[in-house]
Amino acid sequence: MASKPIIKVAALCGSLRKGSFNRGLIRSAIQLSEESITGMNVEFVDIAPLPFVNTDLEVDGKFPESVETFRDKIGGVDAFLFASPEYNFSLTAPLKNAIDWGSRGTNLWADKPAAIVSAGGMFGGAISQCHLRQVGAILDLHFINKPPLFVQAFQQPPKFDYANGDLIDPDTKEGLKQVLVSLQAFTLRLKGQ
Amino acid sequence: MASKPIIKVAALCGSLRKGSFNRGLIRSAIQLSEESITGMNVEFVDIAPLPFVNTDLEVDGKFPESVETFRDKIGGVDAFLFASPEYNFSLTAPLKNAIDWGSRGTNLWADKPAAIVSAGGMFGGAISQCHLRQVGAILDLHFINKPPLFVQAFQQPPKFDYANGDLIDPDTKEGLKQVLVSLQAFTLRLKGQ
Amino acid sequence: MASKPIIKVAALCGSLRKGSFNRGLIRSAIQLSEESITGMNVEFVDIAPLPFVNTDLEVDGKFPESVETFRDKIGGVDAFLFASPEYNFSLTAPLKNAIDWGSRGTNLWADKPAAIVSAGGMFGGAISQCHLRQVGAILDLHFINKPPLFVQAFQQPPKFDYANGDLIDPDTKEGLKQVLVSLQAFTLRLKGQ
Amino acid sequence: MASKPIIKVAALCGSLRKGSFNRGLIRSAIQLSEESITGMNVEFVDIAPLPFVNTDLEVDGKFPESVETFRDKIGGVDAFLFASPEYNFSLTAPLKNAIDWGSRGTNLWADKPAAIVSAGGMFGGAISQCHLRQVGAILDLHFINKPPLFVQAFQQPPKFDYANGDLIDPDTKEGLKQVLVSLQAFTLRLKGQ
Repeated sequence: MASKPIIKVAALCGSLRKGSFNRGLIRSAIQLSEESITGMNVEFVDIAPLPFVNTDLEVDGKFPESVETFRDKIGGVDAFLFASPEYNFSLTAPLKNAIDWGSRGTNLWADKPAAIVSAGGMFGGAISQCHLRQVGAILDLHFINKPPLFVQAFQQPPKFDYANGDLIDPDTKEGLKQVLVSLQAFTLRLKGQ
Repeated sequence: MASKPIIKVAALCGSLRKGSFNRGLIRSAIQLSEESITGMNVEFVDIAPLPFVNTDLEVDGKFPESVETFRDKIGGVDAFLFASPEYNFSLTAPLKNAIDWGSRGTNLWADKPAAIVSAGGMFGGAISQCHLRQVGAILDLHFINKPPLFVQAFQQPPKFDYANGDLIDPDTKEGLKQVLVSLQAFTLRLKGQ
Repeated sequence: MASKPIIKVAALCGSLRKGSFNRGLIRSAIQLSEESITGMNVEFVDIAPLPFVNTDLEVDGKFPESVETFRDKIGGVDAFLFASPEYNFSLTAPLKNAIDWGSRGTNLWADKPAAIVSAGGMFGGAISQCHLRQVGAILDLHFINKPPLFVQAFQQPPKFDYANGDLIDPDTKEGLKQVLVSLQAFTLRLKGQ
Repeated sequence: MASKPIIKVAALCGSLRKGSFNRGLIRSAIQLSEESITGMNVEFVDIAPLPFVNTDLEVDGKFPESVETFRDKIGGVDAFLFASPEYNFSLTAPLKNAIDWGSRGTNLWADKPAAIVSAGGMFGGAISQCHLRQVGAILDLHFINKPPLFVQAFQQPPKFDYANGDLIDPDTKEGLKQVLVSLQAFTLRLKGQ
């Protein structure tokens, strides 16, 4: 009997601060996938070491070392999970920067499925997700649409441990799990499996 | 030997004027699918008869007759082709209206693939396509990303017969055909065929 | 001593249903301006009678009668108030339709100040406001930025009388009043008064 | 007789590469303002030295030194000129990063006028400008709407010296000058002068 194939997911976080709620969403996604989802391997990919995008840094078709490392990681996965905070009604600079490096030369996002989650203030990152979806169109990403996850981080009951950014709300964890399950199903569907 | 399944595509045009270039794109898409694409049936669905969206018009779960007719048509297809002109940096009202009627009650757009084409001035409808993609996220449409088609209608060589809106430029016809081929492939892929 | 000049504001509502919350925001804005703001006259302009935009309806430079009536009203004011509900992550069709008619021929929105308010579900119409602002760039509208008003219509305490759409929440009324005061100040500033 | 007041404009460029066309637009704007516009002082503000936004870098209400320097420069001007290239249908990371640093603590963009210009491929940066305008709403920037400047950098006749990014096309220079004149007029109008 064939076992379910294991899909590999690279998880990127748009916030660099240690106690980031969006980083907490990714930690929780990794834990959820290990504990309760069969066939899904979520790995955090750090985007902090990347330099700002600048084509002057590309010499003889080579990228800076940190960029090569980053591109190796995202080039080897089946799907993406973006934790995309909203700064001033759009993407954060570190996330946009990583996305742009991944698209240089061979576009490594092309034809791959992706999910977006976000935590933030009033809208829970919704406008950031809108911008990221627009960017995804030219990257040729295939975003899942359902279920959405916009975590309104400051509403009651508490969603995160404010000290370290850990996700603590059971309903939000369940919502996040459903995003992962949906991403897994869409990935397999696009692969014809 | 199994023959290729025939996929049914509903084509909606955002412009109501007779000589519309976007309407011309749909006429050309129908002709191209008949002449040179096996297994694809594109049908124009008229959105002009619909009233403005207004939930007061929904009585006992029934829609106005023109809306029921429209919903029957879009409910029975495998994929969508939107010809979406850009009016003032966004969708046209008739197209947004049709989309909203299709989403009332049972959302008839859900989980279906779609392509967007557009003809217009400087940007060829690009910003309209951006807005439509955002709308598609909540409708749960799966848009193809490649190839894009933004027809800059007033550049040389002439793209349309200005008298009747017929698409006359061979290169644009080829681009439109590739959109249809991509939509067909994505539809079959999502169906697991 | 010179008295404060009276500025005239045309208020448009994107929803046509009788019990619309957004229509309720406009009724409240009219009442607030009458009762507690000196020098501001807000008038509701009905967009329901307009036909769908279609340049075939423009004959010898004349618009259909309902369009001429609409254009006369918006052509004679100093500023605009848009109550813009969010349908499927964008503007409603009736509002986009009215905006497009106002921009045909002589663009009647040009160089005028405007404010957007909205009532809706989770985001209170925020994405609709984003789209309207993009549209406003090509219309040459000058939107106020502060304060924002995104009324989350289904949160406690109740914001509206659900039976008729009347705004009943005192805090939201105060927020709406501050929008009007800001629009008035920006209008006078742009006029050099 | 009172002489015209001199308005100070900070010019930011979203691209870091040496031969950037958008950087060329700013060089040309500086030259044009010196040679043919009375009362306007355009200064380039370098955003390359800024670290990625990260609130962990803010200690006791102090920003990193490069951020303080940047904030001093933008805090002392009357208006902004953004040269905003389009990377993957949105802002570049360096520009978004600078914008976000400027909004931390005291929002230094608030209530100031701004203009956006861009050079790029097919759309000349139009979608990037759309995103920047959305961001500007929460920053409380007042963008001029007219005239637009979307330089389609690869169309004939040549717009730039490809070797160094200098703007060489006379028509585009005239368009850029009109943007500056409009920004100057809007700045004075908002100041009541």
